[in-house]
Amino acid sequence: MNLEHIERLDRNDPLAAKRAEFHIPENTIYLNGNSLGALPIAAQQHAKNLVEEEWGNGLVRSWNRHDWINLPGRVGDKIAALIGADVGQVICCDSTSVNLYKVLHCALHMQSGRHVVLTEQDNFPADLYVAQGLAASIQDREVMVKAVPRSELGLHLNEDVAVLLLTHVQYRTAAVHNMAELTRAAHAHGVLVVWDLAHSAGAVPLTVDADRVDFAVGCGYKYLNGGPGAPAFVYAAQRHHNKLRLPLTGWMGHRAPFEFAAAYTPASGVRQFLCGTPPIISMSMLSAALTVYEHIDMTQLRAKSISLSELFLQLCSENEALQSLQLQSPVAAELRGSHLAFSHTHAYELAQAMIKKGVIVDFRAPTTLRIGFAPLYLTYKNVWDSAHILADILEGEDYLPTADGKRNQVT
Amino acid sequence: MNLEHIERLDRNDPLAAKRAEFHIPENTIYLNGNSLGALPIAAQQHAKNLVEEEWGNGLVRSWNRHDWINLPGRVGDKIAALIGADVGQVICCDSTSVNLYKVLHCALHMQSGRHVVLTEQDNFPADLYVAQGLAASIQDREVMVKAVPRSELGLHLNEDVAVLLLTHVQYRTAAVHNMAELTRAAHAHGVLVVWDLAHSAGAVPLTVDADRVDFAVGCGYKYLNGGPGAPAFVYAAQRHHNKLRLPLTGWMGHRAPFEFAAAYTPASGVRQFLCGTPPIISMSMLSAALTVYEHIDMTQLRAKSISLSELFLQLCSENEALQSLQLQSPVAAELRGSHLAFSHTHAYELAQAMIKKGVIVDFRAPTTLRIGFAPLYLTYKNVWDSAHILADILEGEDYLPTADGKRNQVT
Repeated sequence: MNLEHIERLDRNDPLAAKRAEFHIPENTIYLNGNSLGALPIAAQQHAKNLVEEEWGNGLVRSWNRHDWINLPGRVGDKIAALIGADVGQVICCDSTSVNLYKVLHCALHMQSGRHVVLTEQDNFPADLYVAQGLAASIQDREVMVKAVPRSELGLHLNEDVAVLLLTHVQYRTAAVHNMAELTRAAHAHGVLVVWDLAHSAGAVPLTVDADRVDFAVGCGYKYLNGGPGAPAFVYAAQRHHNKLRLPLTGWMGHRAPFEFAAAYTPASGVRQFLCGTPPIISMSMLSAALTVYEHIDMTQLRAKSISLSELFLQLCSENEALQSLQLQSPVAAELRGSHLAFSHTHAYELAQAMIKKGVIVDFRAPTTLRIGFAPLYLTYKNVWDSAHILADILEGEDYLPTADGKRNQVT
Repeated sequence: MNLEHIERLDRNDPLAAKRAEFHIPENTIYLNGNSLGALPIAAQQHAKNLVEEEWGNGLVRSWNRHDWINLPGRVGDKIAALIGADVGQVICCDSTSVNLYKVLHCALHMQSGRHVVLTEQDNFPADLYVAQGLAASIQDREVMVKAVPRSELGLHLNEDVAVLLLTHVQYRTAAVHNMAELTRAAHAHGVLVVWDLAHSAGAVPLTVDADRVDFAVGCGYKYLNGGPGAPAFVYAAQRHHNKLRLPLTGWMGHRAPFEFAAAYTPASGVRQFLCGTPPIISMSMLSAALTVYEHIDMTQLRAKSISLSELFLQLCSENEALQSLQLQSPVAAELRGSHLAFSHTHAYELAQAMIKKGVIVDFRAPTTLRIGFAPLYLTYKNVWDSAHILADILEGEDYLPTADGKRNQVT
């Protein structure tokens, strides 16, 4: 592997032009798009008009004039295209956690004779918290959250299980579940399946309709580049739309919010997942950001994501200084999402040293260095440079002394 | 009443300079700040830096560098100052409806022997929906939502009631409840009180601590001018912080979110009301918008709000064309919030005709014309002009023919 080869890879990259659609700060290699996506130029350019024209001049009229009222569905349909869902099944709203609460509630309601939410011990902790909180609030059902090792999921699928709740790409290791197979196995036992797509949407090709997924939730601010804390999304398969019972029944999910009826009647379709008035500024920024994905071939994007991470692994194997990093992610590329995790005793200090040199990576307690490869704005040269910078840090050993207890506080 | 007098009122207005802190479109009189507040210049100016510097250049580092992680509490403390709450009791998050769900759940949990949520028939329908949805999801408790006429609230306060849920300023008529007295009466029966401050915060002086309020929720996009769908807020009295049990247990409400523990341990204090990652762009815009309220004397603001609406009523009484409008709001100014509601058979057409002439008012089905007086950016001349424009419309009768079925879809 040499620089010439790297430059050839960049010249031949069919997605190379996409990088210009992002604002990447100078002297920065951003390997944390799996935590917070970079700023798309389209969103940057939209901000002024959104604030000054839509809000400032349009004022309350913009609910109609700029169709804010249907923004959640419009953004939902854009996301639907990225996860293999037909229109009318995805809506943008609230946070991933709040949406997870909604879909788990719906799924439990549909499975009245069953009392177990089956999930994985290493699921993203927030998903466990949400399931625990919901179970505690549905007191008569004695709903139990059963978190088992990943390898034992299949053994616990039985007729007591109401819902199988899994995150498609593991937040730490990037290990990917086989969505089609696990969904099929769950259905064979009458179990409904909820997928968290936080680290998948926009990074890995998904086919939720074809895989007969029941419900999914996901995040707007990672690979979808919607901005910090951008609203999340919900997918609910069409076949379930008439069986839903939402716990969070706000006016935006009402059949006719502006009739101000005293009783709640849910909207038909996925709109019933709406609750309160959505954060239009954040959501409209996400909507603008999603234009980056127009005309993207997800297979091509996945191929680049894999070559970027494979290149990093190859550089690790070729450089002695990098051998102290222990790969925590699956070795087989097809079993990983779009990031790599390495274990190192001094992972925190390494992350800090890299960030100081402009290579923004992520630390996850206690000893994980997480390196994300967002294929829309990373070059092969970025990967080459960051591997060499990391090698220099490890060789120099100047990352070692640190007394700064502050942690890099973001997923 | 003549123009000279009006101009004197504006000259002597101690809040007159505040108008320059807002972007008000040309040839527009904005009488709908109770639905969506106008754009503060501070927010407009903040937008570029927020998007380009904080997100674009700071990227994931801004969680620390720009302290996004503590934004919900910082915004909460700014709002606390406007509602008479000491710091550490208000937090900004989610929507009003989602927050209402949380506080009702907490209050019901604290009142385990009681099963009634008492509210008012004419409460904002979304609040009724949220209470109904929560009651339906806590199946063992057989929680009942009892919605009674406003005048009969006192008769239904008894030892079966867990929570009294009221909106302080009624969304349609602007009728104000006596917060101190109703809270005291409820407490005498061991009832906890939840106040919805959507039409109060930033418009009416509030003293939630002194009134011994238990919980409150409110809206960031009306008088607080945070932008469309700006995040909402929760107030929880300090004395309850150790008794809370949140249904929505997301990672941002965890004691140590970045330790990624498998079990949920709530943060201490009001931070446990957080759930998922907050929409930073929308919330930071609200934070910037709230600088408008620095050094505002709420008594002075209330006095201006009352003189504006009293002026409108006086103009109505002096102008024959305006006599077909039936006041739906309380006649006594101290019993009203910051808007006026009038009933008129052709309220919808009148609202449309006014909007066409640049006077933005609000229609509420079936026959209400809602006129808001946001005291920070309205002049007495605005009120004079809008009354005359409305009178002209009524005299000309050209508002009558319309076949356009579209409604002005915003609260």
